[in-house]
Amino acid sequence: MPGLEHARPRLVLTTGEPAGIGPELALMLAVTGDLPSGTVAIGDPEMLAARARQLGLQVRISVSQPGKALPESRTGVLAVWPVFLDEPAIPGVLNPANADYVLQTLNVAVKACLAGHAQAMVTAPLHKGVIIEGGHPEFTGHTEFLRDACQVSEVVMLLATDRALHSQVPGWQGAGDLRVALVTTHLPLREVADAITVERLRRVVRILETGLRQQFGILAPRIAVCGLNPHAGEDGHLGNEEQTIITPTLSALRAEGLDIHGPLPADTLFTPRHLAGVDAVLAMYHDQGLAVLKYAGFGRAANITLGLPLVRTSVDHGTALDLAGLGQADPASLKVALNLAATLAGRKRLG
Amino acid sequence: MPGLEHARPRLVLTTGEPAGIGPELALMLAVTGDLPSGTVAIGDPEMLAARARQLGLQVRISVSQPGKALPESRTGVLAVWPVFLDEPAIPGVLNPANADYVLQTLNVAVKACLAGHAQAMVTAPLHKGVIIEGGHPEFTGHTEFLRDACQVSEVVMLLATDRALHSQVPGWQGAGDLRVALVTTHLPLREVADAITVERLRRVVRILETGLRQQFGILAPRIAVCGLNPHAGEDGHLGNEEQTIITPTLSALRAEGLDIHGPLPADTLFTPRHLAGVDAVLAMYHDQGLAVLKYAGFGRAANITLGLPLVRTSVDHGTALDLAGLGQADPASLKVALNLAATLAGRKRLG
Repeated sequence: MPGLEHARPRLVLTTGEPAGIGPELALMLAVTGDLPSGTVAIGDPEMLAARARQLGLQVRISVSQPGKALPESRTGVLAVWPVFLDEPAIPGVLNPANADYVLQTLNVAVKACLAGHAQAMVTAPLHKGVIIEGGHPEFTGHTEFLRDACQVSEVVMLLATDRALHSQVPGWQGAGDLRVALVTTHLPLREVADAITVERLRRVVRILETGLRQQFGILAPRIAVCGLNPHAGEDGHLGNEEQTIITPTLSALRAEGLDIHGPLPADTLFTPRHLAGVDAVLAMYHDQGLAVLKYAGFGRAANITLGLPLVRTSVDHGTALDLAGLGQADPASLKVALNLAATLAGRKRLG
Repeated sequence: MPGLEHARPRLVLTTGEPAGIGPELALMLAVTGDLPSGTVAIGDPEMLAARARQLGLQVRISVSQPGKALPESRTGVLAVWPVFLDEPAIPGVLNPANADYVLQTLNVAVKACLAGHAQAMVTAPLHKGVIIEGGHPEFTGHTEFLRDACQVSEVVMLLATDRALHSQVPGWQGAGDLRVALVTTHLPLREVADAITVERLRRVVRILETGLRQQFGILAPRIAVCGLNPHAGEDGHLGNEEQTIITPTLSALRAEGLDIHGPLPADTLFTPRHLAGVDAVLAMYHDQGLAVLKYAGFGRAANITLGLPLVRTSVDHGTALDLAGLGQADPASLKVALNLAATLAGRKRLG
């Protein structure tokens, strides 16, 4: 009964900051037929229709509701679960009055996934600053918001380039392809060192290892870990967190049977000899890991949040306000994130 | 009179930590004829001869002195200015008793460059930890040692991949090729934020700009600068050093006529759209810049110290104690560093 299939969409796509490129990326993929079957967007249907007209994109917006049947997946049709803007959105112009709208799209997606109306969620970019200005000073990003919405204590941000996303071959990180997870995410650099604790590192490694097994299907993941300091502290001469925190924690995890290597200097680890045989690199902080990942695979990478009771992927880029409304944005990363979500949803076996 | 040419060697090569791979890399290049003409190694002649025998490398060690004629450059001959070990060196086994020996090889090289007996110096890797243990607690690395030995207040560490090393085409950073300079170098991560000051940033940008003009021959260098914090602080939500220090300093330098862009998020800057047209990237700290650089060009990159009254290049790797004495080390980066030094020495016009 294929009709029933559409009552339970596989993927919900939050269209993100309405002044950014998120809405038009969803429309562009609807035009080219690159939305996986059963994808439903979450956003303001009028805004999406207006954006389509503005860009000359031939897309019919088909409004539905969680739990209701979706229109058949077809090129040129975008199924939408509506959330309504508080004020009209102008491409490129942030408006704090629409901060609640953006968060509401996320809440609808989380609820649908937890209720079984969706099997995975994919997020287009939002703009942290305008969410904070819109009355949410505690907001630090999608990843942390989802952690709190799902009431888990820790999640892990993993970015991967497209071929590394789907491979289940152990130790596979081919030329130009990487999986990189982070111990800390959106923190000022001066707060990073104090945020590297035994407890956090243990939890992050455990979540990463579980995610690689359950979501990526790698039986015995091998993880290589960066040091915090340059040269991984060079025996304590350039910082001692490796000696006091990282090395003992990794030793304890190894003793528990995990296949963990490091800490290694970041500028040594990201070289062929050390990447060979490794399933994921764990970096201590944002720029240590993501500068390399984006260099290796910008526009063909996606972000996966591990540790949630649902599947969530995301693009690897921001709102690109300067490009919004011009139709010049590249939907490649969103396409990667959607296809990954579809793959992970099919493989779903969350702990 | 070609004989006179050899009285003034172009390049001095310090062979570095005697327990590491430095000595054998020099010997390997002597065997393959890949030492630029007029290269003289600085190190213990007996140690070098013993290492050659141990590895079965057919190299004749030809001892000379600064200011004296060198043997004709020939495949299978390594010219050496002697500095003598305090204790015999065992490959792979660090010995603090030889710390002074390593520093002495550097002093001989600096003196030769400043006296005009050499036109450039190239350094094989040393091991910071054993130098510190050997009675030099203040030692933090080659770059800082040379700064003090040359009595300048600031130097800048620039790493570049091989093709980017020699190009004088403005804005040239081809696929897989980069020039990356650092504002801070060998500091514990927790000390980095406080080390980013207006004064330091101004000095570093000025030295980098001068170096790109004078040593690389780029008439009007374009420099792109990373933020300190993730997302370059995201308008102050993830740290404020961009707003209080970096942005105002770059604005002032632009007003003085420099072609400076940023601060940009590190994971945005290292992507094709932002690298296009840029002659060098300036990263705020070690792992932010060098993880990408080594990923892009490991084994075919070299390190140049800008701001010295002499030309100095270096390999992009460490002592590799685990490989020392086995003849398995790859001399590619040393070859790149030597060829770069030869190029820069020929172009020499230091301010």
